[in-house]
Amino acid sequence: MGWAIALHGGAGDIPRDLPPELRELRESCLHRCLGIAIDALNSHKLPLDVVELVRELENDPHFNAGKGSVLTNNGTVEMEACIIDGSTKNCGAVSGLTTVVNAGVETVDSSHFITPQNIERLKQAKAANSVQYDVNQKFKLCLSRLYTAYINIGTVGCVAVDSSGNLAAATSTGGLVNKMVGRIGDNPLVGARTYANKFCAVSCTGKGEEIIRATVARDVAALMEYKGLTLKEATDYVIKESTPKGTTGLIAVSATGEVVTPFNTTGMFRACATQDGKTQIGIW
Amino acid sequence: MGWAIALHGGAGDIPRDLPPELRELRESCLHRCLGIAIDALNSHKLPLDVVELVRELENDPHFNAGKGSVLTNNGTVEMEACIIDGSTKNCGAVSGLTTVVNAGVETVDSSHFITPQNIERLKQAKAANSVQYDVNQKFKLCLSRLYTAYINIGTVGCVAVDSSGNLAAATSTGGLVNKMVGRIGDNPLVGARTYANKFCAVSCTGKGEEIIRATVARDVAALMEYKGLTLKEATDYVIKESTPKGTTGLIAVSATGEVVTPFNTTGMFRACATQDGKTQIGIW
Repeated sequence: MGWAIALHGGAGDIPRDLPPELRELRESCLHRCLGIAIDALNSHKLPLDVVELVRELENDPHFNAGKGSVLTNNGTVEMEACIIDGSTKNCGAVSGLTTVVNAGVETVDSSHFITPQNIERLKQAKAANSVQYDVNQKFKLCLSRLYTAYINIGTVGCVAVDSSGNLAAATSTGGLVNKMVGRIGDNPLVGARTYANKFCAVSCTGKGEEIIRATVARDVAALMEYKGLTLKEATDYVIKESTPKGTTGLIAVSATGEVVTPFNTTGMFRACATQDGKTQIGIW
Repeated sequence: MGWAIALHGGAGDIPRDLPPELRELRESCLHRCLGIAIDALNSHKLPLDVVELVRELENDPHFNAGKGSVLTNNGTVEMEACIIDGSTKNCGAVSGLTTVVNAGVETVDSSHFITPQNIERLKQAKAANSVQYDVNQKFKLCLSRLYTAYINIGTVGCVAVDSSGNLAAATSTGGLVNKMVGRIGDNPLVGARTYANKFCAVSCTGKGEEIIRATVARDVAALMEYKGLTLKEATDYVIKESTPKGTTGLIAVSATGEVVTPFNTTGMFRACATQDGKTQIGIW
């Protein structure tokens, strides 16, 4: 039994013809974050501290969290995040953040989070009179191939378990393009997108309404706790039975050091590693 | 198999020596609401419409929801509510409401919700530098008996099932006395205080942090769905094992028309009825 770690950078309809330079931007960020996480676990940091490295993904403008968050209908950022410790179930969640950089709490002027790409995304969403979780679905019909690829961004998350079986999960997002100011998404709903107990730690990405209805993260834990399923069985069930196709991806680790990254979307930006030296970075 | 209905008006450390006039105020409100619900179910209204009768409890100033909601640290009201339909899991939740009267959406000036009792409650909480869910615990030591009784108010909720097994749940609250403006409680977290699926409908009341950690409402449904427990077994487990003593009460109905109202607090204002003519109104 060893440690295990997984990261995600959002699931959705990621086109197979994603230009190599855009693919590399995200893969290199995931690779760098995975390295930080591996070092932290090898240094015996607690999983609760390790999963805070979602800050690295928040700080990368290529993901929809922290800097690079998509914009509300007022052109502002309103970010959400959630973190939970498996052994105590101590948890925290926030919504409507406009100035907080990461945990800490360092604050900046909210202009820090706004990128030219997200100003453009909002403009397109307003023109289409649309609020989009999976920005591609309608947009790719009317946008250039390059821009389509650029808007394949998503929620970020991290789950970790150490060799003693301590578990933790964290998820962070900017929400939906053109969302109404004040909208609270599924990210701060403990049990929906983020959950951990003594069996597993789970972070999800995808269509919030479906994730809320199925309490996806809690469902994985409940299937292990109450039905005696393995991590793989529980997550396969949730991805196939609890949520509609095309809506959900998740990363999860178990107390015994298993790691899974299933999704029922076209793809999910993800990375994972286990103490025995296996690592994986994937999109489709 | 027939319809079943349950209502609650909050759980907590309700003193056994509650003055009769205060007890009667709440019992008569619960009795009146139960009558409305019974009529609605006998008229074949859908459970989703029936549970909206939390509006009657919201409109009664003796409960901490709608008119009579406790005040934030700024002396304002910020209300929360959640509703879910079991068969579709369609759900809605709101937080930070200041002007919305019930569903609908009728709005009023927010002064409508503020009662002299809640101005006094906030004053006492500020003097004690305290934020309280169970207002009694610290307050009754320093307050008169009458006032202690008055502050035994709580979240309101309703669950219903019709004779076809359609299920729904709703919960509504003003939150905590002296809470920070902008605080989002557990009420709008689908799965925590409120949940329904094809097995059962659940509405909880009590200490939000514990209810979030245990995803109490979803847990009842998960124990039935994944462990094959009956409604009584599932709710008994959650009340005894998933949440600390003194923190949680819940009302629940199953698809087959069972109804339960367990709690691990001193008491819970509650009422329930089944199609075979059984009714109950209780506090301790």
